[in-house]
Amino acid sequence: MDKRFYAIIMGIGPGIGSALAFQFAKFYPVVLISRNSSSYESIVTDIKANGGHAMGITADASDPNSMDAAFGRIERDMHGANLALAAYNARGPFARKPFLELKAEDLQASIAAEAAIPLLLTSVQSSPNPPSLLVTGATASLRGSAFFSTVAAGKFAQRAVTQSLAREFGPQGVHVALVVIDGGIDVPWAKHIVTNGGVEDGKLKPDAIASSLWHLHTQHRSSWTLELDLRPYVEKF
Amino acid sequence: MDKRFYAIIMGIGPGIGSALAFQFAKFYPVVLISRNSSSYESIVTDIKANGGHAMGITADASDPNSMDAAFGRIERDMHGANLALAAYNARGPFARKPFLELKAEDLQASIAAEAAIPLLLTSVQSSPNPPSLLVTGATASLRGSAFFSTVAAGKFAQRAVTQSLAREFGPQGVHVALVVIDGGIDVPWAKHIVTNGGVEDGKLKPDAIASSLWHLHTQHRSSWTLELDLRPYVEKF
Amino acid sequence: MDKRFYAIIMGIGPGIGSALAFQFAKFYPVVLISRNSSSYESIVTDIKANGGHAMGITADASDPNSMDAAFGRIERDMHGANLALAAYNARGPFARKPFLELKAEDLQASIAAEAAIPLLLTSVQSSPNPPSLLVTGATASLRGSAFFSTVAAGKFAQRAVTQSLAREFGPQGVHVALVVIDGGIDVPWAKHIVTNGGVEDGKLKPDAIASSLWHLHTQHRSSWTLELDLRPYVEKF
Amino acid sequence: MDKRFYAIIMGIGPGIGSALAFQFAKFYPVVLISRNSSSYESIVTDIKANGGHAMGITADASDPNSMDAAFGRIERDMHGANLALAAYNARGPFARKPFLELKAEDLQASIAAEAAIPLLLTSVQSSPNPPSLLVTGATASLRGSAFFSTVAAGKFAQRAVTQSLAREFGPQGVHVALVVIDGGIDVPWAKHIVTNGGVEDGKLKPDAIASSLWHLHTQHRSSWTLELDLRPYVEKF
Repeated sequence: MDKRFYAIIMGIGPGIGSALAFQFAKFYPVVLISRNSSSYESIVTDIKANGGHAMGITADASDPNSMDAAFGRIERDMHGANLALAAYNARGPFARKPFLELKAEDLQASIAAEAAIPLLLTSVQSSPNPPSLLVTGATASLRGSAFFSTVAAGKFAQRAVTQSLAREFGPQGVHVALVVIDGGIDVPWAKHIVTNGGVEDGKLKPDAIASSLWHLHTQHRSSWTLELDLRPYVEKF
Repeated sequence: MDKRFYAIIMGIGPGIGSALAFQFAKFYPVVLISRNSSSYESIVTDIKANGGHAMGITADASDPNSMDAAFGRIERDMHGANLALAAYNARGPFARKPFLELKAEDLQASIAAEAAIPLLLTSVQSSPNPPSLLVTGATASLRGSAFFSTVAAGKFAQRAVTQSLAREFGPQGVHVALVVIDGGIDVPWAKHIVTNGGVEDGKLKPDAIASSLWHLHTQHRSSWTLELDLRPYVEKF
Repeated sequence: MDKRFYAIIMGIGPGIGSALAFQFAKFYPVVLISRNSSSYESIVTDIKANGGHAMGITADASDPNSMDAAFGRIERDMHGANLALAAYNARGPFARKPFLELKAEDLQASIAAEAAIPLLLTSVQSSPNPPSLLVTGATASLRGSAFFSTVAAGKFAQRAVTQSLAREFGPQGVHVALVVIDGGIDVPWAKHIVTNGGVEDGKLKPDAIASSLWHLHTQHRSSWTLELDLRPYVEKF
Repeated sequence: MDKRFYAIIMGIGPGIGSALAFQFAKFYPVVLISRNSSSYESIVTDIKANGGHAMGITADASDPNSMDAAFGRIERDMHGANLALAAYNARGPFARKPFLELKAEDLQASIAAEAAIPLLLTSVQSSPNPPSLLVTGATASLRGSAFFSTVAAGKFAQRAVTQSLAREFGPQGVHVALVVIDGGIDVPWAKHIVTNGGVEDGKLKPDAIASSLWHLHTQHRSSWTLELDLRPYVEKF
């Protein structure tokens, strides 16, 4: 545990966010951000019970003022530790609705990740692993499909932002990467959803996803990945 | 000139929009929509002087209320003619600014094109050419780059929407396609910008772009293009 | 009919090749190349009966010596006319076989198109339309799939060659483009194959494909397309 | 060291192949295949000196008979151990030559990797990590460019084969993936080639590449990557 650095996970819950928290907490104190404290409380408790360091912050990643307040508090509470790793895992409701019913407001890509960049830049010289901003996308990051134009628009925009940030801040030493998660995720609340015929390991395990995000963080700056796809071995694609 | 049908061009001006208007006016009455009447007045005059039919409407494609009003007026003024072709050519200011200066408001994809879909659907049975929604994109539709994350986010989102609409409304008979314009455009106000070494035809001619959009409109429904790239013969890509 | 120029179609038969021949013969004398004279004889007869100019040559596009001989004969017989348009439409047997049964010999991309480039280069100054090399690809040009590794390897390689040629010879004035045909083709011998539920226009019409290839040939050099996808309006993609 | 399994590296030398050998030898006995014994002898010696297990085999990956003989010998010498990991790292001479000088023979994608699939399939049940076939590609895997049509054709074909194999054998439990290496590699014999302004870590370190290949091998089958890009933090792309 290197307490000179810490990690932030934006978008927490009992699925991927939780797995990221436990994975990163093996190496860094972790800050968990969610709109609802109920999303992170038990995770914080578990990490502490296992000897790790964790804190939760209630904030809305789509509200710049809320994020400013959250990051202000993080900087105070971290007593000079530096941000080494930020993960942005916003998995909104994938509402399936015909395009004609869309409203312009739906079409808004979250850029809360922006708030983490300045902090990551300050860690370039000192961090043992390249400071990283890792974003989780989905199948809809790569293709639009009928009835999912809002989801795809948001995920395409997120990919555009990730690519642009990667190209802008990579040469400054911050590793920005997108993880495209192409398949159903094996989370407790989706047990009833059968994918890939219900075969074993037919859904992505959050721990396995977290393992690949951690690998991205440890990549040497001579050999960075911009985009990583992840899908079950039985997935059609 | 088939007056049972008409075309709409959203995003008009002395460049691509104007060329589209003249191209489409050879076959249909045209409706030109712009925020400023000064953008379409001389074009409307020219088309009429050449025996065509044209009308201009002042409206803001990013404001649903403004678009509702515009389309209401179009339906009244068209006396039962049907929409056969809609082109969406929004080429906003490609402001180059570092991501850290971005505001969330910048990251908004225009979906004014949405308003045209219901009208196009009503023309499927009668229109000699498949009713079409054609959208003009840019290099930034395909890749993010440093300092252009807002532009890319918007263009990626636009591409996502176009792909999604194509997959949703194609089987219903409406041809939705994206034209990716990869290069500088040969417009009067950009004469001073030298691209490709200033070589002849080193910028895209608006008339040539319009010709390819027209080709898309005339494609038989057995053989539609989803995405068309256009660039000068000397362009690096 | 501009007899100072001619077109070549490599890969002829009663489907796309035939449609290309009739389309191009409206504008140029056409040379049809096939391994078997039976593939072109009736087409040549038909074109002549309609007042066009056509000749057939028996040659093997995968055999450099055979192609050399064929192009030698073409140059003699054309009496100084210049090549304005070459189409390469090799649609081999799409044998579905597991990879483990493949042989290395299967994995050979045809580069017969190469033979046409020097002739096209000589037409750059004089040809009214930019001299063009147009190649037809398939779904397998864009993605590999189980049991189709040989098909995909060949089509990927063909796409690589087309892209490379486009980038090398485009700035010299030769328009090289790939047409990705994504769907079943409506040819007489495939009437029994039901695609897209047998819906009307659910297969690509060869004439419609030919129309889009002709459009590519007529594109102004300021606005060229590198890659064009074509698929039926009802196609899933 | 798990001696019930072993790894094969096809394409060995003092760069990536050597790094792969040392990385994999931490976990498995390794078999190194090259056309010349001088390519692997010192690596075998080094691995043994460090307590690992290694053997070299002279064979030509483009010759099916040679590969058959090599794999026959491997199976004999491995005394019932199973193949858990095969890496195919063919980095031929990237000759820059105009397309018109190409010969058809150049355009041949290597499919030596095919030989490894049956052996990997036998390890699915027993191997602690999913048996893996990992292939190294290059920038030319993703785009053709002027003067590099042969390189691109080969790399495109290789990508097609890798994708097809991934889709065919993934559901059977074999992880097939492509690593796209986009940049110059920091190898002894290329020290004189300056890339990215000669900045530190401006070339890919073979050890870093090997680390990412190893990560692919350890990915849980619920969350596999098909394609991984790697490039220096300062690389333009």
